[in-house]
Amino acid sequence: MSGYTAPLWDMRFALAEIAETDELAPDLIDAVLDGAAQLAGDVLAPLNHSGDVEGCVLENGVVRTPRGFKEAYAQWVAGGWGAIAGDPDHGGQGLPHVLATAVSEMWASANVSFALCPTLTMSAVELLIAYGSAEQKRVYLPKLVTGEWTGAMNLTEPQAGSDLGALKTRAMPDGDHFRITGQKIFITYGEHDLTPNIVHLVLARLPDAPPGSRGISLFLVPKFLINADGSLGARNDLRCVSIEHKLGIHASPTCVMSYGDAGGAIGWLVGEPNRGLQAMFTMMNRARLDVGLQGAAIAERAYQQARDYARTRVQGKAPGAASEGEPILHHADVRRMLLALRAGAEASRALVYYAAAMGDRARLSPDAGTRARAERRADLLIPVAKAWAAEIGLDAASTNIQVHGGMGFIEETGAAQHLRDARIALIYEGTNGIQANDLVTRKLVRDDGEAARELVDDMRTTTALLAGSRLGPPLAAGIDALERSSAALLDLYARDPACALAGSVPYLRLTGIVTGGWLMARGALAAERRLENGDDERSLLEAKTRTAHFFAEHWLAAAPAHLPAILGGKTVMEFDLGLL
Amino acid sequence: MSGYTAPLWDMRFALAEIAETDELAPDLIDAVLDGAAQLAGDVLAPLNHSGDVEGCVLENGVVRTPRGFKEAYAQWVAGGWGAIAGDPDHGGQGLPHVLATAVSEMWASANVSFALCPTLTMSAVELLIAYGSAEQKRVYLPKLVTGEWTGAMNLTEPQAGSDLGALKTRAMPDGDHFRITGQKIFITYGEHDLTPNIVHLVLARLPDAPPGSRGISLFLVPKFLINADGSLGARNDLRCVSIEHKLGIHASPTCVMSYGDAGGAIGWLVGEPNRGLQAMFTMMNRARLDVGLQGAAIAERAYQQARDYARTRVQGKAPGAASEGEPILHHADVRRMLLALRAGAEASRALVYYAAAMGDRARLSPDAGTRARAERRADLLIPVAKAWAAEIGLDAASTNIQVHGGMGFIEETGAAQHLRDARIALIYEGTNGIQANDLVTRKLVRDDGEAARELVDDMRTTTALLAGSRLGPPLAAGIDALERSSAALLDLYARDPACALAGSVPYLRLTGIVTGGWLMARGALAAERRLENGDDERSLLEAKTRTAHFFAEHWLAAAPAHLPAILGGKTVMEFDLGLL
Repeated sequence: MSGYTAPLWDMRFALAEIAETDELAPDLIDAVLDGAAQLAGDVLAPLNHSGDVEGCVLENGVVRTPRGFKEAYAQWVAGGWGAIAGDPDHGGQGLPHVLATAVSEMWASANVSFALCPTLTMSAVELLIAYGSAEQKRVYLPKLVTGEWTGAMNLTEPQAGSDLGALKTRAMPDGDHFRITGQKIFITYGEHDLTPNIVHLVLARLPDAPPGSRGISLFLVPKFLINADGSLGARNDLRCVSIEHKLGIHASPTCVMSYGDAGGAIGWLVGEPNRGLQAMFTMMNRARLDVGLQGAAIAERAYQQARDYARTRVQGKAPGAASEGEPILHHADVRRMLLALRAGAEASRALVYYAAAMGDRARLSPDAGTRARAERRADLLIPVAKAWAAEIGLDAASTNIQVHGGMGFIEETGAAQHLRDARIALIYEGTNGIQANDLVTRKLVRDDGEAARELVDDMRTTTALLAGSRLGPPLAAGIDALERSSAALLDLYARDPACALAGSVPYLRLTGIVTGGWLMARGALAAERRLENGDDERSLLEAKTRTAHFFAEHWLAAAPAHLPAILGGKTVMEFDLGLL
Repeated sequence: MSGYTAPLWDMRFALAEIAETDELAPDLIDAVLDGAAQLAGDVLAPLNHSGDVEGCVLENGVVRTPRGFKEAYAQWVAGGWGAIAGDPDHGGQGLPHVLATAVSEMWASANVSFALCPTLTMSAVELLIAYGSAEQKRVYLPKLVTGEWTGAMNLTEPQAGSDLGALKTRAMPDGDHFRITGQKIFITYGEHDLTPNIVHLVLARLPDAPPGSRGISLFLVPKFLINADGSLGARNDLRCVSIEHKLGIHASPTCVMSYGDAGGAIGWLVGEPNRGLQAMFTMMNRARLDVGLQGAAIAERAYQQARDYARTRVQGKAPGAASEGEPILHHADVRRMLLALRAGAEASRALVYYAAAMGDRARLSPDAGTRARAERRADLLIPVAKAWAAEIGLDAASTNIQVHGGMGFIEETGAAQHLRDARIALIYEGTNGIQANDLVTRKLVRDDGEAARELVDDMRTTTALLAGSRLGPPLAAGIDALERSSAALLDLYARDPACALAGSVPYLRLTGIVTGGWLMARGALAAERRLENGDDERSLLEAKTRTAHFFAEHWLAAAPAHLPAILGGKTVMEFDLGLL
């Protein structure tokens, strides 16, 4: 079993050079990152494998999390980690999202099952801040911001997954509140023993609601009702009827929730009637970025485990090796795998941090034009960061198994768990196919390619600085491919939307690769600048440039080759459906 | 849970048009395939999920396979399936390997854990036919050929995995036999309850053996000794001390075997002293091809399950769809995924059957030149078929999960099992990195690129027939990339072997893609020929061509982009080892 040591050097580098968090005091960054690194490495990481083995247990309606989770969660709350990015008006510390992102990366690297719980709470907080009544905010937000209570998002029903418009849960008016009745599935941390209360946010239909996605409202439904003095009151009419037996993230309970078995769970409308889906969009960007971050986080953990193994496992003799008895790190193909893991972790981290920083800038910049441009950039890149970083995480987990050889297939080694845990990130918060659909229809077509063109322009500013560098030509070719495929997809979508959507996933992948390559090149330029300025971390800075070279050779070089797949929708759509 | 229906049409097509099994009577092929399809679909496939859930249990040294396995195995033996490719001199039916390959594909698609057992027995049979004494053949072969007893291959030890030269198990002479002492790990079906006896083939060192790989001998060590009358005698001094808890293939026991706890297991030398590793090479080609076949088989099973789900799961409304309430098959991205699954299954099947047919030709052709050329081709492509088809199987299993969305992550659906089962094929029988090393050092460098040049020549014969076809240009570009990278790697290896090996896995992948694309193009040409000849299976034949187009757009187009990674070994080898 391999531990976890937060990659603080690269995190700081990405914050400074990729996310450009100039406004944050270095002392503050250090204090936050160091504290989180300690909790992640010492407390959360050691519970990762045992949590996977034990899983969660449902007994008499109560979900028991694995041994140590309750204590770890209490420590996490006591350390103030729930509140770091929270609104200061409600007890939060108001740090920028990008710094919270670096912190969240550590939770997810250490223990992705654990990390999911705060993620859901954060979504509930965002929704209540944006749409909650003054009373709802007063009663629920302070406890949610600190993590003393957790939040749970209740969207999916058996017949309503990617298509939430098909949902059937009902809300009947009953005095000042509503009575909620229905069944929800795939509710992460819908029930657990970490906190005394759970605040459910539930999508449901009012009696007079129009059909489809325009008739969905959002309700706040606490597990325990709150008395006037703030103490916990009666148990609400909702319960966990089963938990799923999943491929991975075993330590996080995925609940089937039943509302209203005894007449209807008491809930309150959040925001306007029939505007529940729109409200959900409020938290969607952050939630999607959190899932991409899980991919980057697992890539980092997989890299660390592969490296630890390759440094100690002795096997065979590499060509040119001084002697037998050297670790497999010396084998050329093992080195290639380790460098692929390193490059994948760094590139996905850079992309997620960058998108998070754009989100901060969109909220915080004093200049309206900068805010608008940053918002377009974040909106464009968030589906890419979600889907592509999730793929990087899955590939990394698989490569880590490969570095371990036969031992990687044995569960006790812990490598297999990362693969099982990583797989879900391609699915939840909107499957990668849904992200690609969003990228093409809402982010590319809706603004007629403006945001994509702005991105290409910014990328070309970087290539202009790469004259004479080996990174220049592959990046320029990748940018050209992105520009051409964006233009061609826009054109194709106007004529035949289905045909364009058949190329949407390869298009998203291309965007991820080129943006990742661009950010790696920016990192290389920054590293060279630091070296010129006499920075004494020579080997780490040179490694940044070399990792960027590897990324260019192994990922970016393949970018132009995506075009036939992106524009090959006709082959897909003309294929005989009866045979498919 | 989804069943399995053998893809008999495409299997027959691949046998006729890709493997060119002209010499086999169609009636015979039909009878064999139809019989196997029935057993695979009706008996083995239904045990796949239950076998995964139950797994194997070790109690008092006895391994209990999951419910139904014993009966299924007995049915398999009674049906004569063990013997179909066996040597007629020892009770086999002597059918060509390529036909046995199609049959084995069905076992592996239906139930890969079950399929492993005959695979190992076949390896033992090959070894005994090639190296066994007359007495060993007489006593053991008839029972192994039919499958009444199984064979197990005992190679790996904790310190000796990819590097078998490091193994320590000892064999002390003791009269006409030897006493074997040592521990072996990762022994597939090393112990089980399917048959009354298990014939272990064990690598061990004689007392005077030279160190390293030149001091390894091969021994036959039966679980039960055989009496003079052929009945089972005393229990030998070997036992299963534990079984592994693995990511997948739960129904196949992976055993830690201990030899000689009570003084030494009785064994007999097979072949010459210190020539055990060379003997192992006898069965290596077939065993490696079997692992590639597992990849193709899981790709087929994943395709079928994804298709079944996409045809029935109703969700959302596709652009241009007539109405709500249509299955997700109508969504463009789901169609893309299904076509990717179909193309992957067909291409990997074509490659494995082709390599198997080359093996048959190398043994059976009346012409010595043809035999030699076919042997070079098989030797070249077997590491590619093993590694690339294994990757295709893993990707397909992952894509099947993606088609299922959230349901794919729930174990009861069965999709997750295919991913868990598929992962091992990249590791055992030599990791994919070992295959790539073999491809570069033994198959490319050793004959100075002759076999690779012959392959390129044959491929160009096909492109000459593709004038005017959309398949021509991407195939030609892929072939050029293969030719250039082969030449460049040869050159690089002469100067810097480690640097060349750092590009070996991307080179193997390129070879797989281009060879797969070539065989798909040959299939398309054959389909068009059949159509011109008035074949009335129009829709199936047109689908062959369209699937080849998809393969060209999604795989083959990326072939030339592999060059920077193949030739980028310097970036890998110059990276600071202390940081990696």
